[in-house]
Amino acid sequence: MHKTLYALSLLAVGCTQQPAEQAKNPFSSGQWIDLSYEFSDETPYWPTSGPFRLNTDFEGITPGGYYYSAYNFCAAEHGGTHLDAPVHFAEGKWSTEQIPLENLTGDAVVIDVSEKARTNSDYQVTVGDIEAWEKTNGPIPDQAIVLFRTGHGTLYPDAKNYLGTDERGAEAVAKLHFPGIDPEAAEWLVGNRKIKAVGIDTASIDFGQSKDFKTHQLFYGANIPGFENVANLDKVPTKGAYVVALPMKIKGGSGAPLRIVAWLQD
Amino acid sequence: MHKTLYALSLLAVGCTQQPAEQAKNPFSSGQWIDLSYEFSDETPYWPTSGPFRLNTDFEGITPGGYYYSAYNFCAAEHGGTHLDAPVHFAEGKWSTEQIPLENLTGDAVVIDVSEKARTNSDYQVTVGDIEAWEKTNGPIPDQAIVLFRTGHGTLYPDAKNYLGTDERGAEAVAKLHFPGIDPEAAEWLVGNRKIKAVGIDTASIDFGQSKDFKTHQLFYGANIPGFENVANLDKVPTKGAYVVALPMKIKGGSGAPLRIVAWLQD
Ligand SMILES: [Zn+2]
Ligand SMILES: [Zn+2]
Repeated sequence: MHKTLYALSLLAVGCTQQPAEQAKNPFSSGQWIDLSYEFSDETPYWPTSGPFRLNTDFEGITPGGYYYSAYNFCAAEHGGTHLDAPVHFAEGKWSTEQIPLENLTGDAVVIDVSEKARTNSDYQVTVGDIEAWEKTNGPIPDQAIVLFRTGHGTLYPDAKNYLGTDERGAEAVAKLHFPGIDPEAAEWLVGNRKIKAVGIDTASIDFGQSKDFKTHQLFYGANIPGFENVANLDKVPTKGAYVVALPMKIKGGSGAPLRIVAWLQD
Repeated sequence: MHKTLYALSLLAVGCTQQPAEQAKNPFSSGQWIDLSYEFSDETPYWPTSGPFRLNTDFEGITPGGYYYSAYNFCAAEHGGTHLDAPVHFAEGKWSTEQIPLENLTGDAVVIDVSEKARTNSDYQVTVGDIEAWEKTNGPIPDQAIVLFRTGHGTLYPDAKNYLGTDERGAEAVAKLHFPGIDPEAAEWLVGNRKIKAVGIDTASIDFGQSKDFKTHQLFYGANIPGFENVANLDKVPTKGAYVVALPMKIKGGSGAPLRIVAWLQD
């Protein structure tokens, strides 16, 4: 065989084998990171919602002589680390169980606005923040899951610090202060990029002082689900993580407790 | 440039780019399959548990003029597609939030006993079933998630067929009939193989007629969590699937609603 052709064929072998091995097990070298808070009586809820409650059915040694424990629980959909299904703010759009797994899994990007949000609890992510991110990192890829890091997660779960108030009831809503996404930025993303989902490390994708939840309306009207109270965003790289966000599969739900994890390839 | 060299360099470019792209997106060729049932008022629960309840907080047009819906819900931990945390039957072992993500994710094997269980609702998976599987497929790999397919999932969610009774209350427990895992098989797996978790397409890893839940005690005593009421096991291959099983992260829970999915590489 001609030397060059031989080299070529070797190259070709190397070429076909490597992707095949990669394709076999995407999870062979890397680790999962948990982006979810636990549910407990410390879980912060919207001032108008009740708390998470875990009730004991049984806990102890049974008449049969073995240990047994079982509990039941009650919760609002929209507290702790949770999903917002599009139907939460958009009639006829996906409810919780209808969201395809394709929209709950995918490559993630992290847009970090924590420098600005640190000193301003009413900060809203701007179109400029996204443009600045793209200038450094390139356009947000099609089908990305976009996670906004405001840095507010460091205050979780203390309601006074994290939500801006620990008061309960309808009057407390006006006292909510935490960062969110400016409706103009939401509109820009919906109109100019093809994203699967958005997430944030605060209690809501609209900032605490929002009155009309326009960012909710914009994303959910486009069937783009939201992940709220996402944990550990400081551990997710700007690009390269793969997110799996699995909500409790509530039929007809407008949201659900969410277990969201990120796969970091070595 | 020499034509052959040019071709070579083109190939080389193609060669280095392909694995890089693969590494960047190992999920480009494959799909997620949902192994979870939805939660609704049809979800079957243990005769001594209450039903799943979804209550409406609000649903309709707000005074602000936009659509809004929100619900809250109550559920027993152990109904529908759910996790059994080891502490369910083993004091001091992992509660729901304590189970490492490593034990909830991994390569899965499916052991299919549906031929035998089809005609016997009291069937229990035997050591012989596992040995027969290994004779064909090789030893169950270390760190596998072992899923038992009894075929009983085809009867879900009708309680009379799926659980053996649709009666409620303590007296109905003796009327439960569905397949499970023989305690001897559980003991064999715990003693002879290193598995991460077990799953089954029935309401419990012990069969319906169990009185002492010995299989629960054996697995959970070894900190091996259980997945119950797992859906769509007929769509998971004997080997080669990668499972991600994410329970709602209930602090101190003995279990939780579980969203379990399988990645099938093309
Ligand atoms: Zn929400
Ligand atoms: Zn259970």
